[in-house]
Amino acid sequence: MGEDAGRGLECQKIMDGKGNNGNSSQKAIPSCCLKARASAPELEAKCHSTVVSGWFSESQSSSDKAGKMVYFNNPMWPGEAHSLKVESILYKARSDYQEVLVFESSSYGKVLVLDGIVQLTEKDECAYQEMITHLPLCSIPSPKTVLVVGGGDGGVLAEISRHSSVDHIDICEIDRMVIEVSKKFFPELAAGFEDPRVCLHVGDGPAQELVEKPFFDTLARALRPGGVLCNMAESMWLHTHLIDDMISICREIFKGSVHYAWASVPTYPSGVIGFLICSTEGPAVDFLNPINPIEKLEGAHQHKRELRYYNSEMHKAAFSLPSFLKREVRLLCD
Amino acid sequence: MGEDAGRGLECQKIMDGKGNNGNSSQKAIPSCCLKARASAPELEAKCHSTVVSGWFSESQSSSDKAGKMVYFNNPMWPGEAHSLKVESILYKARSDYQEVLVFESSSYGKVLVLDGIVQLTEKDECAYQEMITHLPLCSIPSPKTVLVVGGGDGGVLAEISRHSSVDHIDICEIDRMVIEVSKKFFPELAAGFEDPRVCLHVGDGPAQELVEKPFFDTLARALRPGGVLCNMAESMWLHTHLIDDMISICREIFKGSVHYAWASVPTYPSGVIGFLICSTEGPAVDFLNPINPIEKLEGAHQHKRELRYYNSEMHKAAFSLPSFLKREVRLLCD
Repeated sequence: MGEDAGRGLECQKIMDGKGNNGNSSQKAIPSCCLKARASAPELEAKCHSTVVSGWFSESQSSSDKAGKMVYFNNPMWPGEAHSLKVESILYKARSDYQEVLVFESSSYGKVLVLDGIVQLTEKDECAYQEMITHLPLCSIPSPKTVLVVGGGDGGVLAEISRHSSVDHIDICEIDRMVIEVSKKFFPELAAGFEDPRVCLHVGDGPAQELVEKPFFDTLARALRPGGVLCNMAESMWLHTHLIDDMISICREIFKGSVHYAWASVPTYPSGVIGFLICSTEGPAVDFLNPINPIEKLEGAHQHKRELRYYNSEMHKAAFSLPSFLKREVRLLCD
Repeated sequence: MGEDAGRGLECQKIMDGKGNNGNSSQKAIPSCCLKARASAPELEAKCHSTVVSGWFSESQSSSDKAGKMVYFNNPMWPGEAHSLKVESILYKARSDYQEVLVFESSSYGKVLVLDGIVQLTEKDECAYQEMITHLPLCSIPSPKTVLVVGGGDGGVLAEISRHSSVDHIDICEIDRMVIEVSKKFFPELAAGFEDPRVCLHVGDGPAQELVEKPFFDTLARALRPGGVLCNMAESMWLHTHLIDDMISICREIFKGSVHYAWASVPTYPSGVIGFLICSTEGPAVDFLNPINPIEKLEGAHQHKRELRYYNSEMHKAAFSLPSFLKREVRLLCD
């Protein structure tokens, strides 16, 4: 795409890690890394404030002035941490919005980290990307237009492109650096941007929390009758209060169906991610039994990428909920 | 039980952490803990070779003589680690067979660790214990006798006790210390031993790997026609080769059905655990649709413990498999 060429050039300056990172990155290097740099030059490639002794960890610890351990970073995961062994750091920079890190891990392939929180790994991105796309698009007979909020890596776009009924895809991403980084390091995902149906909007939106009422209100008003929203909805093991809140809000706003589903994603907190899937008033939507099964969808399987997680069985199974979840989130009771 | 009183006394000596741990534990204390002991006596309670700066990690690291990082401990989880923040260490000792550690974590309740590997946490043990018990026992109309191999914490026994049709339960556990530790720190699980149907056998068995052919052969021969085995079967994200091997062996040995199911367990490698469930030649067993649904089982719900994970929906959903698993383990193809 013609427009893309200019965008690529513009961002090349950011991609080399000097554009936004200049002197401040020098200051940010922790002492453990400086030591490693002095004694073992081959370790320099692993140098980042979230990487200690060759491991990236989502729950970073540091000491305050009194020498007491202070924990920060992923507030969604207090008291536990998931760590990945780092082979090499491929990219690090600060964008206008966040810290962007890409590293090659020993066991999960390349990893994209934003503000210290794992966004995706090559090994398990399939579960999240395929589910958040096909749970909604396989629940309506012939989806036509899709809006993606966030998802600048392009993985969701790549999944949407399996659906030939779709004629227009808008994507709103705040951070151009995420898109450019994905084009360089996750070309299979970023290939989603090459679909001619995609219309990219880069920029900030109204300042709204993505899990609060005004945001859901706006989306509900944007949808046609019987239109569908699928939103990421936390971990059933850790965040039942948040899930409860989100379902309450959505039951109030969406007058169709509101359901909770989940999938296994090893590198997300507690190894699972939830989805809240809602429909507006209009033609009834039965989320639990895909009306538009992917196995019968022409072209969906003869696509560039193989489906790795999603299938119609997994679609149905995702709505089965553990007893503790139904008890803690009363709105999920049968 | 009269027999128990003596056993309790005998083990009290071990339970105080001095019996088998003596001087060797002094040597094992890492320098970081010695430092903490000197400067902050309140941290002494967190002192254990697997606990660094107040965190337990399943993938421990240490430096060899050349200063190169060497990783050890959980061979099932190379290149990643899950860490839990430790509030206090409740018990540590070396039994005749393994290192036993119990600690109070910040976010998962009490944790039982054997040889550095998490066996269960109060928060998520339900998923594993309920699934490995009720997947087989709800698949046959009226289960009578049950053999549990391992499971000295008693959690599986506590689950079996929901089934009033069962008239005899044998359990073979190699390590008496696990049973005693569970009675002290996990009384809800160890309550399973109080069921009068339970017959406990403590001791070593024939030296057989629990995932290899001779072991499965022995079990198949011990089962009645149409009898059922449910075996823990690794992570679908990490161990498809092992799963493939186990299924090949079991398809050869068990002439009934052989199926793979999975559940979400946050503190196990990659956040999931699999189950291999097999039946011998005889009356056909349909594992996918529980013939003995727990919701209709008298007394199963009016039990001391509430079911937290398992229900008939979760039973059925557990057999839905991601597309990558069916591709990598051809025997799981439809």
